[in-house]
Amino acid sequence: MVNGYTGNILRVDLTNGKILIENPEEIFYRRYIGGEGFVAYYLLKELKARIDPLGPENKLIFAAGSLTGFAIPGTGRNSVGAKSPLTGGFGEAEVGGYWGAELKHAGFDAIIIEGKAKNPVYLWINDGKVEIKDASHLWGKITGETEAVIKKELGDKLIRVAQIGPGGEHLVRYACIINDLRNAAGRTGMGAVMGSKNLKAIAVRGHKKFAVKNKEKLRAKIKEFNEVAYKSFSGYFKYGTGYGIMEQFASSGNLPTRNFRDGDFKGAKVLDPGIMKEEIGLKMEACYACSIRCKKIVEIGEPWNVDPIYGGPEYESIGAFGSNCGVDDLRAVCKANELCNKYSIDVISTGVSIGFAMECYENEILTDEDTDGIALNFGNAEAVVKMVEMIAKREGLGDILAEGVKRAAEKIKNGADKYAMHVKGQEIPMHEPRLKQGLGVGYTISPTGAEHMANLHDTSIASERAMASHSAIGILEPLKIDDLGIKKVRALVYYTNWQNSLNALLMCYFVPWDYVDIPEIVRAVTGWHTSTWELMKVGERITTMARAFNMREALTKKDDWLPERFFKPHTSGALVETAIKPDELKNAIINYYKMMGWDDDGIPTKSKLEELDIDWVSQYL
Amino acid sequence: MVNGYTGNILRVDLTNGKILIENPEEIFYRRYIGGEGFVAYYLLKELKARIDPLGPENKLIFAAGSLTGFAIPGTGRNSVGAKSPLTGGFGEAEVGGYWGAELKHAGFDAIIIEGKAKNPVYLWINDGKVEIKDASHLWGKITGETEAVIKKELGDKLIRVAQIGPGGEHLVRYACIINDLRNAAGRTGMGAVMGSKNLKAIAVRGHKKFAVKNKEKLRAKIKEFNEVAYKSFSGYFKYGTGYGIMEQFASSGNLPTRNFRDGDFKGAKVLDPGIMKEEIGLKMEACYACSIRCKKIVEIGEPWNVDPIYGGPEYESIGAFGSNCGVDDLRAVCKANELCNKYSIDVISTGVSIGFAMECYENEILTDEDTDGIALNFGNAEAVVKMVEMIAKREGLGDILAEGVKRAAEKIKNGADKYAMHVKGQEIPMHEPRLKQGLGVGYTISPTGAEHMANLHDTSIASERAMASHSAIGILEPLKIDDLGIKKVRALVYYTNWQNSLNALLMCYFVPWDYVDIPEIVRAVTGWHTSTWELMKVGERITTMARAFNMREALTKKDDWLPERFFKPHTSGALVETAIKPDELKNAIINYYKMMGWDDDGIPTKSKLEELDIDWVSQYL
Repeated sequence: MVNGYTGNILRVDLTNGKILIENPEEIFYRRYIGGEGFVAYYLLKELKARIDPLGPENKLIFAAGSLTGFAIPGTGRNSVGAKSPLTGGFGEAEVGGYWGAELKHAGFDAIIIEGKAKNPVYLWINDGKVEIKDASHLWGKITGETEAVIKKELGDKLIRVAQIGPGGEHLVRYACIINDLRNAAGRTGMGAVMGSKNLKAIAVRGHKKFAVKNKEKLRAKIKEFNEVAYKSFSGYFKYGTGYGIMEQFASSGNLPTRNFRDGDFKGAKVLDPGIMKEEIGLKMEACYACSIRCKKIVEIGEPWNVDPIYGGPEYESIGAFGSNCGVDDLRAVCKANELCNKYSIDVISTGVSIGFAMECYENEILTDEDTDGIALNFGNAEAVVKMVEMIAKREGLGDILAEGVKRAAEKIKNGADKYAMHVKGQEIPMHEPRLKQGLGVGYTISPTGAEHMANLHDTSIASERAMASHSAIGILEPLKIDDLGIKKVRALVYYTNWQNSLNALLMCYFVPWDYVDIPEIVRAVTGWHTSTWELMKVGERITTMARAFNMREALTKKDDWLPERFFKPHTSGALVETAIKPDELKNAIINYYKMMGWDDDGIPTKSKLEELDIDWVSQYL
Repeated sequence: MVNGYTGNILRVDLTNGKILIENPEEIFYRRYIGGEGFVAYYLLKELKARIDPLGPENKLIFAAGSLTGFAIPGTGRNSVGAKSPLTGGFGEAEVGGYWGAELKHAGFDAIIIEGKAKNPVYLWINDGKVEIKDASHLWGKITGETEAVIKKELGDKLIRVAQIGPGGEHLVRYACIINDLRNAAGRTGMGAVMGSKNLKAIAVRGHKKFAVKNKEKLRAKIKEFNEVAYKSFSGYFKYGTGYGIMEQFASSGNLPTRNFRDGDFKGAKVLDPGIMKEEIGLKMEACYACSIRCKKIVEIGEPWNVDPIYGGPEYESIGAFGSNCGVDDLRAVCKANELCNKYSIDVISTGVSIGFAMECYENEILTDEDTDGIALNFGNAEAVVKMVEMIAKREGLGDILAEGVKRAAEKIKNGADKYAMHVKGQEIPMHEPRLKQGLGVGYTISPTGAEHMANLHDTSIASERAMASHSAIGILEPLKIDDLGIKKVRALVYYTNWQNSLNALLMCYFVPWDYVDIPEIVRAVTGWHTSTWELMKVGERITTMARAFNMREALTKKDDWLPERFFKPHTSGALVETAIKPDELKNAIINYYKMMGWDDDGIPTKSKLEELDIDWVSQYL
């Protein structure tokens, strides 16, 4: 098995300033690969049970993947993980950009941050050398300013910075970590954990070159990609995510509207990135080594003043601040998105928290007194933008919303909880589970709470055409979108395990490589004689380890459930006769457990752990 | 998913002469692929529970694979299945040669034989046309004569014949089906089922050509094979199986000696195919389209008179009639092998049955009276050859031994059962479970009873070098041979599932293609976007369906056990301190069940069936 694919893991204890470099054996790399795999491994092995996620005992892990740093489209990503202050369970998020590749070039596959610095610090990793540097002068600064200062004081414009803005410093429970100013490790509050450690930023720079085991095969694969696959993605590199789907999502009932309350949104059309390009102007950029330039850059003048250094909104952002808040003002959406990147707070949780507050306001559970006079009606674009600032700075109502909708509803009381759209405390992304019902099940069982990434978008397996790809993992028949039968659950199991494997490799989901291509690429890069089977099992390993982590944190099967709202149909739009049936959902969840080899309570069985070659996990259950 | 890969299944009811041609949908082909997959599907779906395996209600299925008939090394094989008269459970055997490919060229992927002909018949399949022909004049003939007559009367020398000799006619419970005179679908008594149906032979001839979906890729793959992989197999095509290992097997304790009683065999060296070539002369031939010519052809004059049209002995034959009977006379071994092919009885079960009788004789449980005066001492080469004839013709003691050692011991009584080396009634192949302990577990849980093919040969995962290949399915560490821990069981699970997938594709285990090559070949041939994952799951599906079949036939976990002999060490040789510990075996079996997603009684769970996309199986459990 020896192919020489190993590397360095950096361990930094901020409490005592200790810096260690570890060199795990190759088998560790192969069994967990990187990214979410490393995160799951270290969190489970090294965290004590039931620690305070915002205390010094939590560990914050940055992990690149086996493919990161190589010139392969889709691999310019890294993962960040810790116990989540939002869910109290497994926290993990992936992010694109350039930082992950730079970390690898600087000599490290991953960083484990331990303890808590006395005063604000940042980490400076320069071609294998590691320094903990004072960041007192940076604390309180927005991301754009921090990056500029760091680049200046270290004297290198090509430094890459992952960092938190004021949102992270203020421990907004869904604060994110921003790198290159416009890429967010968005979900599960990793920015709050970073803030709790007084760690403002990690600056990296490196020149290390890696050998590809089979250059010729890799080159051929990328050539094939540039000739065929990538050409079919023209929409993506002209307009990025959201293009051409806003109106269709609205009409099919998939577009979350007014805090998931409504089934249609007339303003959907004007939120389309096509319109964005036409009316505002749109530039595109790529992540490291990617030929699919799907990242938007937006510049807007008065009165919104959107700074292009913060990029532009993805579909999730457009949905969260647009339809979900009843807003059809594209410029306001772009501004809200920009602020989230400035302050380092997650666009989805922020938008859904604001939508929640709006519904509370319209139902008089929140009043003008609570909002400092802001009229929090659905559709009030200015109010949305204002609330983003208030959340990031924990001002007024923002302080309550910064806790996430679950905790906010508990504070607000008066029935606010029925408007709190979350699973396990994490706000629900911009895909309607009443339409995509398999995704609804995915929301309930995802270890990070409601998650749209490692999840089954039912539409993707609803057509004969899609089967061409998914047949590689044995999903042979198109399945109805609003079905929760065993075949759908089976597809969910396979699909999410695969995606968690991509989260270990840190291969972007948007790159049109699939179950057959990816093992070829991993083979070419690492020299491992790997297969779809092995990678699927890596993914299953991760799903299971993350579940085990949650079980240790006293999350139970009761936490695997959807908000009541989704059990009733919309009152308008396409889904006036469609809702999730609680019995069907319950069955689907139990079927998911069992197909995963978990028991009736969703606890991984010893035999499944053994089959996955991670029997060491059983000690934590 | 539509790639147009479908074909014809021929259904022949011998009771009423009805001939049907069926065209399953492509998804059937993809889910079960062919060979053992088809066998498991039809036996489970179409047989009534607990029928007499030698009655007209049993069905005999001949199935080629998706790759059979294409010019791909290793694919000239077919599978034969029915309820086994030897085990009372799932019966299935694979065979090489030319018949399977000819069947495909004649227009059929599989044949389902139902009912029972009133008088002996044979089937004549000629380019899609099917005739049931009288075989009264063939009944009683040895295979060589039958083939000659059929070729002559049908007027085509290139006809391929699968048939039974007198062993099948006499319903020897381990009668096999012989094609091309020297290839045997050897195990589980498929020849007895054929005999019970009064079906003497199936003659096939065809000229159908198949389109390969991706000719270029397939050509490149075969070129790569001929340049690299196949060169590393020089021993195989000079001497076939057994070459260079006889002495090594004897000294390591792996060579079954005197009915598995002893731990060393001084005569091992002279049984080596290298000696065979030197002293007797050895020609080699190949199966259809195979560049590895691993099939021996032996010609010997007086007194043995071994006819080369019946090929030569494989390793299993050499072990069964050689060391296992204490015989070190290579010519006698070749004769015993030739007789088995003439009479269509399985070499392993025949040899082990004779070894059993020899041990009974040496322990005075059988006397000269029982043996008609034959001195059945270990080492008596002439007695072995004589007994083969007597078994095939059910003469004297042969009539008892023709029932297999389990039933023979029940008839002989007086403690004979402790010398009956079988699992589920099927005689144990020529690999010592005290040495290869994972294989010992494999013997217990194999659906066909003791089986050496779809099994884990522990030696194959004991070296770092072997990991290069097996790492593709996540077996990352070399494992000790005499270990029965969870990692070994995990390897057994993965390995046997893979092999059952090869048994569906009908890819020979001896061709040095592996987990990564085979999906590429299937993709090139069928156009299916398949992967190692999908093929592993096909294998798991088959293992599970075969298990379900056995459960329906009232086999239970009690039938998953080894003969007591293996719980004590040898009294000489390498294994004087090594034996299987019953507690470890018991644990390993239960761990196997659980890792397979079966319950504590070894019954596949509903969720596992659902996960494998075969929930229809649950109705039979």
